[in-house]
Amino acid sequence: MNEQHVVVAIPESAPLDALGPLARTLLVTVAAADETTGDVQAAEVVVIDDDTLGLLPALGTFPRLRLVQSVTAGVDALLPDIPPGVVLCNASGGVHDGSVSEWVVTVILASLRGLPAHFAAQGRHQWPPAVEQPILAQELAGRNVCIIGYGAIGRAVEQRLAPFGMHITRVALRPRAGVCPPDEIPRLLPSTQIVVLAAPLTDATRDLVDAGFLAALPDGALVVNVSRGGLVDTEALLAELRRGRLRAALDVTRPEPLPARHPLWSAPNCIITPHVAGTTTRWRERAYRFVGDQLRRYERGEPLQNVRTSY
Amino acid sequence: MNEQHVVVAIPESAPLDALGPLARTLLVTVAAADETTGDVQAAEVVVIDDDTLGLLPALGTFPRLRLVQSVTAGVDALLPDIPPGVVLCNASGGVHDGSVSEWVVTVILASLRGLPAHFAAQGRHQWPPAVEQPILAQELAGRNVCIIGYGAIGRAVEQRLAPFGMHITRVALRPRAGVCPPDEIPRLLPSTQIVVLAAPLTDATRDLVDAGFLAALPDGALVVNVSRGGLVDTEALLAELRRGRLRAALDVTRPEPLPARHPLWSAPNCIITPHVAGTTTRWRERAYRFVGDQLRRYERGEPLQNVRTSY
Repeated sequence: MNEQHVVVAIPESAPLDALGPLARTLLVTVAAADETTGDVQAAEVVVIDDDTLGLLPALGTFPRLRLVQSVTAGVDALLPDIPPGVVLCNASGGVHDGSVSEWVVTVILASLRGLPAHFAAQGRHQWPPAVEQPILAQELAGRNVCIIGYGAIGRAVEQRLAPFGMHITRVALRPRAGVCPPDEIPRLLPSTQIVVLAAPLTDATRDLVDAGFLAALPDGALVVNVSRGGLVDTEALLAELRRGRLRAALDVTRPEPLPARHPLWSAPNCIITPHVAGTTTRWRERAYRFVGDQLRRYERGEPLQNVRTSY
Repeated sequence: MNEQHVVVAIPESAPLDALGPLARTLLVTVAAADETTGDVQAAEVVVIDDDTLGLLPALGTFPRLRLVQSVTAGVDALLPDIPPGVVLCNASGGVHDGSVSEWVVTVILASLRGLPAHFAAQGRHQWPPAVEQPILAQELAGRNVCIIGYGAIGRAVEQRLAPFGMHITRVALRPRAGVCPPDEIPRLLPSTQIVVLAAPLTDATRDLVDAGFLAALPDGALVVNVSRGGLVDTEALLAELRRGRLRAALDVTRPEPLPARHPLWSAPNCIITPHVAGTTTRWRERAYRFVGDQLRRYERGEPLQNVRTSY
């Protein structure tokens, strides 16, 4: 280890080319999660991706650790393992908002258009009138959408939905012009046909979507969760789905992964994808370009981006 | 029959309330396609919808017929039965462009995101890593789209794709600023990742998408057909799909309806819906509001909208 370098533990699978030029950084690639000795333990910076998640419980033993940089937008699961005094940053603002917002528009359209039923009919090679029941297609135009959580992802969703002619309301913990505070949610729900959950999981948002929230939505409303499963009371949602009153499109669930025997898998009018909203063929390159920017800031002692905790 | 009235034959199933106030119009509702006697045959105007399509072969025997008004955007199938001297109008501009363009964005996103594979995995209750192969999700952002046919539908598609950050080129028979003529298609195809066919079926567009057209597209390109099956050489497309080189999303096919044994149903990376792109829960009301406007124009002797033929 060279004392002049910033030692950075980074997943071996990372697209290192995307980092760009780094002047004083010694990259130590981590191949296995249990590789917490030697140079890895000397790291000032640890980059957390799927294959370095296993480092988390050991971070308290890293004597020089200053910064934990996640490549994800949500960092709720990392918080308990961040040692006191260590800064945690997420990857947001340009890394995930495009891909995640594309997923949101995809599943809203798929749900309203009845794509699951269409794909099933295609699987049976059935052109109407062989299909027993007509597949109703609803339009986005004129629908009321409520975006809960109005950060980079919420704004990106709004930009992409706007030209469909939707009425969009916004809710965020930090209200500002055009953005409602959470206590207005009960007033908004009865006229909301599509709810998009894009808020981080915090004590303020945990179980936000409970039986009362769902009951306030009108018949046929669609609940889209691209945030964390913890925002939604799964049993309450399941009850509304089973009685055919609401629809859902979920990229995140509670429990997650969803066990094979969980009834949510086959609940009516429920689209489930396995936490892949941000995971496109391009996201990793974008994420590691962001990590490169952040490392250059760290090298130079400049303010970091997307600081989530700083004790 | 009252000589002071314009006699209009209209499907019994039509939402007549949507027509609005009509001063001098006698509506004769048609319950069955073979009902071509009496007041129906005295019609000056015939409104063609699914359940009055059967009137077409008899139109030549309607002595007072002046106008055939379709509720669809495409009227290619009606043309052979329009008697000389009779005006044919389609329903375009505000009736179908919203719903059809929503379908186009839906299937583009569904194809790029791998929704068919995701729905299949959901059907097996499989959260990764139980899914054998990762489902690749591609982004719309940065893709080159070529919209062929730049009328109301083509423009509506462009409006809805623009905020995803796509590069859009336009082709139309009638070139104008920003719209390429058809002879530029060969130059555009090699850099086109998504082709949207939104042109009417005419002698100029029939078989436009043949083996040579398809061969000019790059690997992985997506062909979206929301126009007519006649624009595409089905066998040539099927060959490209089977070798895994191209993808397709088709609302129209040739033959149509697609027979149950047709290999296109189960071709890889091919989404098929049964000619429903315009058919949402709201389209009929919009269509008959347009028909009402047209009938008022006809009553008053004003210029008609969307005239497709006038001999």
